Amino acid sequence: MISKPWVEKAKSARDYRDETLSKVDPPLEPLPDPLPLSSQDLPKKYLTPREYELTQNYDAIELLEMLRSKKLTSEELTRAFLRRAALAQYAVNCVTELMWDEAVERAKYLDSLPEPIGPLHGLPISVKEHHGMNGKTNHASYVAWIGQPCDRNPLNDYLYDAGCVFYVRTTGPQTLMALECENNIYGRTVNPWNRNLTPGGSSGGEGALVGFRGSVWGLGGDIGGSVRAPASNCGVYGFKPTSKRIPLKGMKHTMDGKDSILATFGPLTQSRETINLFMKVILDNEPWRYDPSLTVKKWTPETLTEPLKIAIEWSDGVVKPHPPMIRALKVVADACKAAGMEVVDWEPYKHDKAWDIVSGLYFPDGGEMILAPLKEIDEPILPLIKFITEEQPNVKNRTMHEYWDLCVERDNYREEYAAHWSKTADSGMEVDVIICPATPGAAPLHDTARYWPYTSQWNLLDFPAAIFPVTFVDVEKDKKEEGYVPMNEQDKYNYDLYEPEKWVGAPVSCCIVGRRNMDEKVMAALEAVEKAMGRK
Amino acid sequence: MISKPWVEKAKSARDYRDETLSKVDPPLEPLPDPLPLSSQDLPKKYLTPREYELTQNYDAIELLEMLRSKKLTSEELTRAFLRRAALAQYAVNCVTELMWDEAVERAKYLDSLPEPIGPLHGLPISVKEHHGMNGKTNHASYVAWIGQPCDRNPLNDYLYDAGCVFYVRTTGPQTLMALECENNIYGRTVNPWNRNLTPGGSSGGEGALVGFRGSVWGLGGDIGGSVRAPASNCGVYGFKPTSKRIPLKGMKHTMDGKDSILATFGPLTQSRETINLFMKVILDNEPWRYDPSLTVKKWTPETLTEPLKIAIEWSDGVVKPHPPMIRALKVVADACKAAGMEVVDWEPYKHDKAWDIVSGLYFPDGGEMILAPLKEIDEPILPLIKFITEEQPNVKNRTMHEYWDLCVERDNYREEYAAHWSKTADSGMEVDVIICPATPGAAPLHDTARYWPYTSQWNLLDFPAAIFPVTFVDVEKDKKEEGYVPMNEQDKYNYDLYEPEKWVGAPVSCCIVGRRNMDEKVMAALEAVEKAMGRK
Repeated sequence: MISKPWVEKAKSARDYRDETLSKVDPPLEPLPDPLPLSSQDLPKKYLTPREYELTQNYDAIELLEMLRSKKLTSEELTRAFLRRAALAQYAVNCVTELMWDEAVERAKYLDSLPEPIGPLHGLPISVKEHHGMNGKTNHASYVAWIGQPCDRNPLNDYLYDAGCVFYVRTTGPQTLMALECENNIYGRTVNPWNRNLTPGGSSGGEGALVGFRGSVWGLGGDIGGSVRAPASNCGVYGFKPTSKRIPLKGMKHTMDGKDSILATFGPLTQSRETINLFMKVILDNEPWRYDPSLTVKKWTPETLTEPLKIAIEWSDGVVKPHPPMIRALKVVADACKAAGMEVVDWEPYKHDKAWDIVSGLYFPDGGEMILAPLKEIDEPILPLIKFITEEQPNVKNRTMHEYWDLCVERDNYREEYAAHWSKTADSGMEVDVIICPATPGAAPLHDTARYWPYTSQWNLLDFPAAIFPVTFVDVEKDKKEEGYVPMNEQDKYNYDLYEPEKWVGAPVSCCIVGRRNMDEKVMAALEAVEKAMGRK
Repeated sequence: MISKPWVEKAKSARDYRDETLSKVDPPLEPLPDPLPLSSQDLPKKYLTPREYELTQNYDAIELLEMLRSKKLTSEELTRAFLRRAALAQYAVNCVTELMWDEAVERAKYLDSLPEPIGPLHGLPISVKEHHGMNGKTNHASYVAWIGQPCDRNPLNDYLYDAGCVFYVRTTGPQTLMALECENNIYGRTVNPWNRNLTPGGSSGGEGALVGFRGSVWGLGGDIGGSVRAPASNCGVYGFKPTSKRIPLKGMKHTMDGKDSILATFGPLTQSRETINLFMKVILDNEPWRYDPSLTVKKWTPETLTEPLKIAIEWSDGVVKPHPPMIRALKVVADACKAAGMEVVDWEPYKHDKAWDIVSGLYFPDGGEMILAPLKEIDEPILPLIKFITEEQPNVKNRTMHEYWDLCVERDNYREEYAAHWSKTADSGMEVDVIICPATPGAAPLHDTARYWPYTSQWNLLDFPAAIFPVTFVDVEKDKKEEGYVPMNEQDKYNYDLYEPEKWVGAPVSCCIVGRRNMDEKVMAALEAVEKAMGRK
């Protein structure tokens, strides 16, 4: 029996990946079979103590300081992260390409210079395969696109010019439109905290790698939760800026020119301050001079002097989050109250209607274009992709006039939400930021991440949103709520999934959201919240 | 023979207009028949000396100062402008509704207050009919829409809250997509400097009224030149800000939700500083809190310290402007040089391609939606509307995917133009602003305004652009260029039109353009240029 063409083509990409992994020097010892539920104990065992120390203990800010003060060479650091990334691949299957030779060569070159070439001099950075990179090919997880050339990616260029070392590229889901990370090329990427859970998607490879500490600075993209879901599921920081703050070119995807819902790149990191550095480095380049559609504003950190007014969104009114998420919100709310902030409940505004609008705008052609590369080579559609394109009531093949009508619905909803937010000032101060569930629970079980609105809500509104880790699932504290009567079918689906024993070891994260274009305020508020939580 | 329904309906709007004009108190003496070529001498003859003085001699800034210092009541001022606007209607046919009673009442109310309610306290402001106004109906020059209710118009609300007096509403062309001003309701609006010329469009009623000094502050809108062409043709100031600086709701139009080329409101005024005041008053309201799609930036005047680098666009490389326009550019260029500025030639970048893109994006459905209200009531299509929808090679009924492709072409062109501008820094300083023909000549003869690209270029690029008056057509100086060989059919059409004798009395204006979002810089540069020209 002859294998189908798509199967052969998919294998070629895996072969290429394996070839790049064969460069690991020294090679890694074979991993246990079966692999442990959590991958978190593997690095200590498989890396040298120095590699472990460098990759385990510092965020990007600290590593950059060590590099600048010559306590560390870029080559040593890069080799450590290359080996940890390779280990991550064997543990959780998150790598599409390990860039051993070129990363080491780049690091050596940077080490040879008398002065740093920029603020990221010597820092290893990981990038989602989908984003493309100069001189590489990329396929955006479509088998049909394997081997296609990359476009120029100005964001990567800015980081490169600032002195970074690209060393690894990571996985995404089929079509990129999933909050999990499975495709027909590499299979499934799993969560480094619990392999029965998903790292999320679409920047799932980045989430898994950063959650495994195989990277301190990963690059993802977000149009429905693709930075935030993986960051949340994997217990790391993530940021979806307002669209048009940072450039978005060089990404391979379908439906280019459909700008009714805008994607944005965003970082996944080990610390809040790494996000601030990311934004500063990119915006110092004045990218609006290159892409005139961008907002003309450098990163302008805000100092918040008054006590903050924080609203907690306990539920979006459609699907009640799992108990660990509600506990995490309570941890944050209590810390904020204790620190003297005003903490109120957020009243969600028609989040069900928001999903109708945004899901329709994701695929105004009924999914025709996004599914075309699958049909082209007879690649089978995966269940979650079928779910998001073919099984959504408001995903339809619209006429152009129907499409414009839906854009009007979007604009009206955005204005209604702005009025809803402004109204919070009726009784005193206006709410500064919302703290909400990152997703309807901790990292979902595989093939169950079907409820997007906790993240897609903020894409529809184009609000800046940052993810920060709060706690871990606790089987004792996070018992199932017995006797709960679900509000609807989606709520029942989410409720029925939950059994605390299945979530052992899973991180729980919250999201902090501000009004559109208030990116700096969101990050300043996150600093205040984390300080209230006793963090630095 | 029974009149057609559209004819009856159109008459009802004229009857309404005439009824509002009957309120003029005291009534105006009848005008000469036939009317003189230029309407500029009529006011002195038909208004009282005080009315004439108030409407003839001051800009909005000066009138506001007189109002604030109680040298003048709002009622006296409003009555003067009401009478001059009525005179404008009889002279050039630019009014759809005179708001006598409510304007006088409003003015009296404002005069009765001990303190000004805002920065525009007592100032009469005119508004294009198309924009809508609380409590009124509007039809956007479609017969079928006569009598339809208005949407709320936040821009008008801001001005009202700042203390202005709305006193007159003005004409626009059929469908609003014309650089002239004729429709089947009111007929043709003519130019107050020469009635054989058009005031331009679509804000043609505003252009004519402000050019007649029947208003010091008019409100228009611009998606292809609709503020700039009338401002230029009528010898007044006009400003098209970057889109999304000021709110754009409350306008009646078709194709809502098609946001691939964005319209913006903009002022037509007697002075540059009135534009700055307009922008400040609107942006002091933080309109982004109401419409979250707007840019978050107050009006932030810039001080330009270095000598400016000005590029002169003598021609767009497709259609050569008429001699008066080229002379006007030379007047400005010489003044700038004499003031020590660096003056270079601007190299246009594929302006023909720009028109292909922008014309296609104006009507991606081949004009179906914009023409529907005509068909609904069997209203005849006018020649220039047929020209812009049915006779443009790149106006097609596209599929949604073809539409997205055209949006990609737009984005690519925008980036190429940005790179083209950045490249001017290769040899020293970067060009600060472009000074270019406002349109391919002075105000066009009726039914000949067929070349949009001098204005639509900056809508496609979304660059801020201000119009300023420079000179008047001079039959002696502006002789036809004999022996000129046109570059193409459009160039030949424009060239053949020109006979200086037909343009007696016509103002000639230039346009100053900056990179996207550099609105404040454009206005600062205009100040420098006007000072170089010996103005205040």
